[in-house]
Amino acid sequence: MEQSLEHKRHTLAHLLAAAVLVDYPHAKLTLGPAIDNGFYYDIDFSAETAPGDDDLKKIQKHMKKMLGHWIDFSHKEVSAAEAREVFTNNSFKLELIEEIAAKGETITLYTAGAGTKAEFTDLCRGGHCENPAQEIDADAFKLDKIAGAYWRGDETKPMLTRIYGLAFDTAEELKAYELQLEEAKKRDHRKLGKELGLFSFSELVGAGLPLWSPKGTQLRKRIDDFVQALRAEKGYENVTIPHIAKKSLYETSGHWNKYSEDLFKVRAKEGDDSDEYVLKPMNCPHHTQIYDAAPRSYRDLPQRYAETTMVYRAEQSGELSGLTRVLSITQDDAHVFCRESQLEDEIIAIWDIVDTFYGAFGFMLKVRLSFRDPATPEKYLGEADVWDTSEAMMRTIAEKRGADYFVGLGEAAFYAPKIDFMAMDSIGRTHQVATIQLDRLQPERFNLACINEAGEKERVIMIHAAIAGSLERFIAVLIEHLGGNFPLWLAPEQVRIIPVSDVHLSYATEVHAKLLAVGLRATLDAHNDSMGKKIRNAKQARLPYFMVLGDKEVAGGSVTLEGRNDTSDTVSLSAAANRLLAEVEAKVI
Amino acid sequence: MEQSLEHKRHTLAHLLAAAVLVDYPHAKLTLGPAIDNGFYYDIDFSAETAPGDDDLKKIQKHMKKMLGHWIDFSHKEVSAAEAREVFTNNSFKLELIEEIAAKGETITLYTAGAGTKAEFTDLCRGGHCENPAQEIDADAFKLDKIAGAYWRGDETKPMLTRIYGLAFDTAEELKAYELQLEEAKKRDHRKLGKELGLFSFSELVGAGLPLWSPKGTQLRKRIDDFVQALRAEKGYENVTIPHIAKKSLYETSGHWNKYSEDLFKVRAKEGDDSDEYVLKPMNCPHHTQIYDAAPRSYRDLPQRYAETTMVYRAEQSGELSGLTRVLSITQDDAHVFCRESQLEDEIIAIWDIVDTFYGAFGFMLKVRLSFRDPATPEKYLGEADVWDTSEAMMRTIAEKRGADYFVGLGEAAFYAPKIDFMAMDSIGRTHQVATIQLDRLQPERFNLACINEAGEKERVIMIHAAIAGSLERFIAVLIEHLGGNFPLWLAPEQVRIIPVSDVHLSYATEVHAKLLAVGLRATLDAHNDSMGKKIRNAKQARLPYFMVLGDKEVAGGSVTLEGRNDTSDTVSLSAAANRLLAEVEAKVI
Repeated sequence: MEQSLEHKRHTLAHLLAAAVLVDYPHAKLTLGPAIDNGFYYDIDFSAETAPGDDDLKKIQKHMKKMLGHWIDFSHKEVSAAEAREVFTNNSFKLELIEEIAAKGETITLYTAGAGTKAEFTDLCRGGHCENPAQEIDADAFKLDKIAGAYWRGDETKPMLTRIYGLAFDTAEELKAYELQLEEAKKRDHRKLGKELGLFSFSELVGAGLPLWSPKGTQLRKRIDDFVQALRAEKGYENVTIPHIAKKSLYETSGHWNKYSEDLFKVRAKEGDDSDEYVLKPMNCPHHTQIYDAAPRSYRDLPQRYAETTMVYRAEQSGELSGLTRVLSITQDDAHVFCRESQLEDEIIAIWDIVDTFYGAFGFMLKVRLSFRDPATPEKYLGEADVWDTSEAMMRTIAEKRGADYFVGLGEAAFYAPKIDFMAMDSIGRTHQVATIQLDRLQPERFNLACINEAGEKERVIMIHAAIAGSLERFIAVLIEHLGGNFPLWLAPEQVRIIPVSDVHLSYATEVHAKLLAVGLRATLDAHNDSMGKKIRNAKQARLPYFMVLGDKEVAGGSVTLEGRNDTSDTVSLSAAANRLLAEVEAKVI
Repeated sequence: MEQSLEHKRHTLAHLLAAAVLVDYPHAKLTLGPAIDNGFYYDIDFSAETAPGDDDLKKIQKHMKKMLGHWIDFSHKEVSAAEAREVFTNNSFKLELIEEIAAKGETITLYTAGAGTKAEFTDLCRGGHCENPAQEIDADAFKLDKIAGAYWRGDETKPMLTRIYGLAFDTAEELKAYELQLEEAKKRDHRKLGKELGLFSFSELVGAGLPLWSPKGTQLRKRIDDFVQALRAEKGYENVTIPHIAKKSLYETSGHWNKYSEDLFKVRAKEGDDSDEYVLKPMNCPHHTQIYDAAPRSYRDLPQRYAETTMVYRAEQSGELSGLTRVLSITQDDAHVFCRESQLEDEIIAIWDIVDTFYGAFGFMLKVRLSFRDPATPEKYLGEADVWDTSEAMMRTIAEKRGADYFVGLGEAAFYAPKIDFMAMDSIGRTHQVATIQLDRLQPERFNLACINEAGEKERVIMIHAAIAGSLERFIAVLIEHLGGNFPLWLAPEQVRIIPVSDVHLSYATEVHAKLLAVGLRATLDAHNDSMGKKIRNAKQARLPYFMVLGDKEVAGGSVTLEGRNDTSDTVSLSAAANRLLAEVEAKVI
């Protein structure tokens, strides 16, 4: 976020605190930072009745009134003793003062609206507007909602009231953000997923474990088939691994030591350590064992293994939400085992796949080259010149492709740089999606090599390259990106045939069979409902197309093809089928 | 097994014991039954050196010599005291005598060759030849091997020496059986799987957890695609479920109470019961939850869910072997939810799929109708007339299809009858394969219903219907059935292109690209090896076809297509491609 905007948001947190004290003089202030879309302040209302959502308007009114008086922001350094004096009744601030003092840092008090009835002083490190009244547009912020939050995020400590505000530079930006939120709510994948019958959850099965219906499974398959087809063109081959492995696999890979708490442990009998397995949290360790199952010559390289398979990571059940946080994550995973000299071609091939894949869904991609932080070379494993070469190569590729990229220093893994892709959706949100991750660590740990031209053992390098990433998360993003309006090639149900009445049913049955025969996912609505209801149902199901068949169509051997966007066209059955097949083939969005 | 053959085998166990005592007078006999392919005797040699495989010939010689003297088999009833007297030095026989006496049963001693130097008496229940010398063909049995076995199969008890013998009615049958064994050994899927590079095991991953290479995954995919295509024709739809579920799912299904020991338990943290999951041992409980995720009208039925997915069952690691006993079992599973009135059509549809599927691989099918035992009606759940109707329907279907079937009384599950299919392979072995299993229990337990024409809740019935069953086990059987010679449509590598020398490489590359373009799994052998070596490699890889390209072929734009069975034909490239494609399409075995 721009520094000036951050200053505004931080200033507004102070203003919120000052406004709260008007009607709640016994409230104890704690901390109030700027955040991504505005600001919040955590306040202890244990000495009086805390405000509810209904009270936000009133507090906001106070804020706007006080803002006019805030024409400056001054500060002074104080001793710990002086600070304790000021906040003598506020145990939270006293705790903060002790901490600052213990670190030997300077304690500062910031005052806005000095000398006016809106004067307000708070313990603070600074970072505000110089003249809030002039700099802040009173129509560019608003209080948003109230939530609970533990003091310092620690559930053993007191529960505070958090008041959130939204704030932007201009009223237009605030409005746009609110529209985006509203649109996102309408497109919520949890709501649409249920309406469209794509997936469900069962209490018996458990939270975070989606069950995919036939329609949802169709959607998954279309997406995965697309990835696999793009991969096949680049020489990837599918492999198959089980979902468990002995603990020893993860001890060797290093995951056991680092992430043991996030791993699901598996055993048949309690307390039998020899029988301990791990439910795989990732696929790379298993794939190394397929690479290592046979001696490899340099002529066999690259080996490119792809597999769409579920991995499992233990999340707190409170953190599980729709498809974005699940326990069973389907990765369209792939690993390339190659020589250093083959890296560039392999990265370009993956980048091609990523571009084609996300382009087909209408996502704009932004790329972060995640490099090491040159200020802290000791944090990274391996020779500096190997890092330099890899990073320079990545930058050259990005340049050549004309990618919309930036460099993220310090964003590399400790063993190699990576390329991270961010997708911007149709309502302006960005989502971290695919990654191209070099890995020189696992080949070391698993001792993976090939025999080179000189007959010597040569260490290989691995590339991790999921495209959709997690199918669950990708589908959540996709549903919201498209508002559930899947393009024809993706739609689980592509076209529904609606006979006007029973006398048209036999023609409709014939049309249905013909569409199925050419490979279209067609259905026939033979229910006893009215035409109007059938059409409403088809629209509510967000079908790309439906066909209405009545006297005219039966007589002419034609169909009336109605599109989702109220297009309508009466054409011959074969013309309609060909039009749909061409639209599928071209993956029209 | 025929009773007369069983009597011969049992008699031979006695003869083996008698023959052992010739050279090992201190051996203590324990138990010696007839088994499927012959007989064995468990003997305690702790008082002297036990025989090894090298000694079997000598013992067998004694057997043949003694057999001539065994022209009768007599028995007498004795008191426990008398029996104890006879076996006073044999603690094993004394233990058996106590057991028989405790049950109040008669104790009998059987003697063969009475009055001759081959006379031999043993504690026994009977079931022998009346005149062994006359009835048993001395060329129709032979001693086979020696193994260890615990007394009464209990590992806390003494280890005994088990001597196995093979025995049949005729010498020809013995020979045929030995040839089958020899052939099976050559075709062993563990050996061929490694040679053909289909799958491997890793110590780090663990026993019983196969890792499938690109070739093995191709094979799996071809088989699974075939099942899915047959299913799609019958209206099955794919669904997707996670591999774990809360314990509560299996408490409801009843599996937790019955099979808890065989289930893998999954949790992130030790001792946190609320977090306990189960690694699914089967898919039906999850699939019931997809059925139950929406209200179902009778018009929505049958719902047919198919899914190829891994299930996990805890086996002792000592029991794991190749692909036939694994921890990760891939089931090509399916469940139909329907009304009683739809059962017949659904069973016929599944039977069609089973016949087409196994027929395509050249398996002969035998069918067992697994019905309830009318002698013990109390063992079965549900109304007798519902059972009668289902069983009669199954029998009628079997009759109408002209299936090779028999009825297995008492082979039903306790909640419904089933249809079991047995496949006979090319070397005469039979394997239990697909099953059509009715289930009225889980719909009760999960309260699964539809709303019928009268607007009332109506209980549905489930059908379980895996086709290949376990892909691992099916592939093990298939590899041995075919001796690794996969038909063209299944072969991971269908045709290999072998240029005679470097000057033919560019034509070979062109041919390779064209074959790939028409969808054939073609490879190019561009290595620097000699022609002879390349051809030997292609044959060793059991490829259906390879193509040799030299001067003649380059000049004529042709290819020389060599088949696995030494067929050879020089034709145009397009003619060769079309021939192969037609062979794939027709699934020629």
